[in-house]
Amino acid sequence: MNITIVGAGNVAWHLAQALQEAGNTITAVYSRTLANAAELAIRLPGAAATDSLNFSNTPADIILIAVPDGALADVAERMKVQPQTIVAHTSGSQPVSVLQTIAAAGVGVFYPVQTFSKRVPVNMQQVPILIEGTTNDATSRLQQLAQTISSKVGLVNSEKRKQLHLAAVFACNFTNHLLGISRELLAQAGLPSDLLQPLINETISKAAAHHPFTVQTGPAVRNDQNVIHEHLQLLRDSPELQEIYRQLTRSIQQNRKL
Amino acid sequence: MNITIVGAGNVAWHLAQALQEAGNTITAVYSRTLANAAELAIRLPGAAATDSLNFSNTPADIILIAVPDGALADVAERMKVQPQTIVAHTSGSQPVSVLQTIAAAGVGVFYPVQTFSKRVPVNMQQVPILIEGTTNDATSRLQQLAQTISSKVGLVNSEKRKQLHLAAVFACNFTNHLLGISRELLAQAGLPSDLLQPLINETISKAAAHHPFTVQTGPAVRNDQNVIHEHLQLLRDSPELQEIYRQLTRSIQQNRKL
Repeated sequence: MNITIVGAGNVAWHLAQALQEAGNTITAVYSRTLANAAELAIRLPGAAATDSLNFSNTPADIILIAVPDGALADVAERMKVQPQTIVAHTSGSQPVSVLQTIAAAGVGVFYPVQTFSKRVPVNMQQVPILIEGTTNDATSRLQQLAQTISSKVGLVNSEKRKQLHLAAVFACNFTNHLLGISRELLAQAGLPSDLLQPLINETISKAAAHHPFTVQTGPAVRNDQNVIHEHLQLLRDSPELQEIYRQLTRSIQQNRKL
Repeated sequence: MNITIVGAGNVAWHLAQALQEAGNTITAVYSRTLANAAELAIRLPGAAATDSLNFSNTPADIILIAVPDGALADVAERMKVQPQTIVAHTSGSQPVSVLQTIAAAGVGVFYPVQTFSKRVPVNMQQVPILIEGTTNDATSRLQQLAQTISSKVGLVNSEKRKQLHLAAVFACNFTNHLLGISRELLAQAGLPSDLLQPLINETISKAAAHHPFTVQTGPAVRNDQNVIHEHLQLLRDSPELQEIYRQLTRSIQQNRKL
């Protein structure tokens, strides 16, 4: 298929190259900053770099928009596309309706459930791609395109995608923050920052193999009041961390009672 | 060295076998339940199984106690050992002083920073083992013993070990709980429980390679009030999860301002 990519950031970078390698043709790469578009386009033989959102002369079966969530509505409003083109965004948190202003053959969502950095290679075959379309044709063309790069393609509507995003905030954003707090506590104690890494890796791998609630360990689930009290004492200079500690301890104990 | 193991649970199971494989001799395995001691001892040629804490006739350079934290003080009080023996516990959360009632040549701590399950093999060489001793001799003998099974042996006193344990509660116990919440949210949405696994793995691996605070993503760090509000709406039937969401969002935003 002929694909145009709007955006030249981390998601665009990985998607464009995976799609090209899978035999699709990238016709153009857009970025607000032409140099950024060119940096990606140069890796995609035949792709033009552009800083214009007027694609009425650019042949594309599908245009994928991979811009920051906050820029999505604005980009959608300014975009001009050929009438037979399907347009999809790649965001986990935005509904498909944010694209409704585009005069296209259909709009949709093409959401790779992964975090990308330009320099870190990703095995796209293992990345789930969640598809939604406003027409049967849009849905099926987006699904076909996704299947050229991933073996894990599913249909998920905007409401469910929002619930997935919420689950990801707990599993990834909040988890990352707790790992950051832990790193700070190690630094305060003058301990090496990687001392807990084998334990963290084992915890994550156990939580993948079982329901995490069934393999919960630590003072909260044992209701070890002495240790809990000592930990709160150690956190006495940081009421914010004390409050997080109390709250998560309580939450673990509520599950324990179930 | 001649080693006696008190306990036959997950930690005892892995330590005893690793120590034996490294050329040490396990002279005895204790468990409150003789059959449990026997189940481990049978895997250790020459080891006796016992349900008695009287080791005054059991030759041992070092006795390692690997029992639940709550049982430690009681076991220590009831133990009888030969006067030249060193006794150490394997707990991350307990001070060395819990062993002070034992009439031994010295007491200490031999703490492997890892979570163990009998059925899951562990590469002990990569497991940090943290040593503390009440005498120079105890410290150096425990350190030597640890070095027979791990390449990551360090000296850490009880105060620092307590801080490490606190950091581990954030990085592992709390993280596991958030992964459990995320799993429940996926189930509520009728989505597959492994849908976020590639994203979780990438998040953890990024958090290991960088300080997690510098690679934080998601609505909190972007201060995306629309998404935050929608997520709190999705959690409206669970005030507890709403409160965790608010608290961690606030905490992420406070770090953002630094």
